[in-house]
Order: sequence, then structure tokens, then C-alpha cells
Amino acid sequence: MLAFGIDPGSQNTGFGVIRTRGSKLEYIDAGVIRTPNGAALEDRLLTIYLGLEAKLLEHRPDLVVLEAIFHHENSRSALVLGHARGVALLAARRSEASIDELSPAEVKKAVSGSGRADKHQMKEMVRMLLGLAKAPASDAADALAVAIAGSARARSPLLAARSARQAPR
Amino acid sequence: MLAFGIDPGSQNTGFGVIRTRGSKLEYIDAGVIRTPNGAALEDRLLTIYLGLEAKLLEHRPDLVVLEAIFHHENSRSALVLGHARGVALLAARRSEASIDELSPAEVKKAVSGSGRADKHQMKEMVRMLLGLAKAPASDAADALAVAIAGSARARSPLLAARSARQAPR
Repeated sequence: MLAFGIDPGSQNTGFGVIRTRGSKLEYIDAGVIRTPNGAALEDRLLTIYLGLEAKLLEHRPDLVVLEAIFHHENSRSALVLGHARGVALLAARRSEASIDELSPAEVKKAVSGSGRADKHQMKEMVRMLLGLAKAPASDAADALAVAIAGSARARSPLLAARSARQAPR
Repeated sequence: MLAFGIDPGSQNTGFGVIRTRGSKLEYIDAGVIRTPNGAALEDRLLTIYLGLEAKLLEHRPDLVVLEAIFHHENSRSALVLGHARGVALLAARRSEASIDELSPAEVKKAVSGSGRADKHQMKEMVRMLLGLAKAPASDAADALAVAIAGSARARSPLLAARSARQAPR
């Protein structure tokens, strides 16, 4: 299965692509779609949308995975993040992939075995699980972690039943 | 000038199209893009995006106008609204129109002469300004109000300089 993780942000949007065969994980691609500093929001949204569309067409994943967001420190940053997340979900929807959302705790648990791993531990676990010599950039590592956790749930019928997909409806 | 107002929402997205010749206002089109109850968020976003894309292609407006949002009652509803607003801005960006955002107070002031008009007064003013026999549906009336205010600002160099476009960047 080819899983495509997205970590959307209004400045930087990370993506990470992995292939799983049984319990084996293989790194395929990862990167960060960066938007120009000070650009209008609609220009940044177009950059994110076209960047994701190109990568989704290139890899044709079976599954697109995003982190579900249940709350956010403040309504203004939630609103701006929502814009980026909206175009990311639209790009995912226009690909042929299934879409899943996982809670941050599920992602941490699937990758590190603990729901409370910190950012550094997560990055190091992603590096080790994928056999990379060097840890990827933070936003790319977050997206790879989401892809790893999403593909783990997709392989496990028990986990798949407890989907966080009620998320921001 | 042809102005296209959008009132995005995760359930219903209103749009309203008006033509201005000097200070004359002409109603062209308005309606509501409704999303199926209980549909997945990405399905609703696709409905909103394709609905707006079709209407923007049909009318080819010079200007697309949205209400700027500076704060919101809570971060969860801000996040969901942000998703809808994100795909609306993307559709606007992919059209050939300029994009402008106005504060709710500016929209009220331009349409009713007062920054504190209530929803009912606004709807009635929109009906009168456009010479309609019957007030349009609420979301469509909101979008028409935004289009009226946006085209008023675009015609006034003084008003145009005070753009609310710093909005949710």
C-alpha cells in the first residue's frame, strides 16, 4: 500500500510518501511545499493545492492521511490553518485515494509506541523506521509520521474501526 | 464592473453576482451551494469548490469579494469555516478576477449606511438596492451584500486604499 501523509500549514505544508508490504516500511518521497513570505493568502493556497496535486498525480497513493484537529490554541490561527487544510483535503479528494484522519495521539502512539513522544523523539523514530541516514525536515517528518500511522491503521481491521474521522465535520 | 460575492460556509455557501454601471446596480444571479447533510468534509469541500468554479466560469467576474474574518466565537467552528473559505479563495484565485475582502462593518455600512444594521435590515436593503420583488435566501443575500460593498469600494479610490485585505494572512 502506498500512503501519502500531509501536514498542512499556511506557510509550509509537509508531505511524506511511504510504501508498506506486510509490516515492512519503505521510504518513497517526502518534502515541504513552501509558500512565498508575505504572499496573499489565495496565492499561498494555490501553491499548496498545486504542489499537492502534482505529488498526488506523481505517486497515485492508495491512502491520503491527515492529522485530525480537535482544538487549537486560538480561533484566528485555527481559521488560517483551516484554509490550508481545506485545499489539502480538496487535493486529496480529487485524487483516487481513500482519505483518513488520525488524532495526534494515535500518530505518536503508532510511530513511537507512546502517545506523549516529543517532536525530537518522533523525528528520530521516523528516521529509524524508514532506515534513513538523516532525519527529514520537520514538516516532512510530521507528514511521514502521519503516513506511517495511517498505513498501520489501514492494515489493522481493529484499529481501522476506531477511526478519528468524525474529526472537524 | 461585474462583482461576485461569496459567503462561504461548510454547509451552505452563498454567492451573488451584480453589475455596476456608474452608481447603478443590476442584479445578475444569486444562489446557495448546498452540501449534503452528513457528507464527509472533503465531499462538501469538493461540492463548494466545483459549484463556485462553475459559477465563476459562467459569469467571469472582474472582482470576487469575501467578508474578511478577524475573529470567531470558537476555534473549532473557525477551523471548519476556514476549510470552506480556503476552497472558496482557491476557486476565486483560479478565476481571472481580482480578489478583495471587506470587514463585516464595511459591508453593513456600504449597504445600509450603518455599521450596525441587523440581518433583516440588510436583506431588505439588498432587495431594494437591486430592485428585487422578493428578498433572496439568507446566504445569497449575504453574498449579494458583499458584492455590492466590494464594487462600491472598487469604484472609490479613497475607499479602495483602506482595504481590509490584511485580514487572515
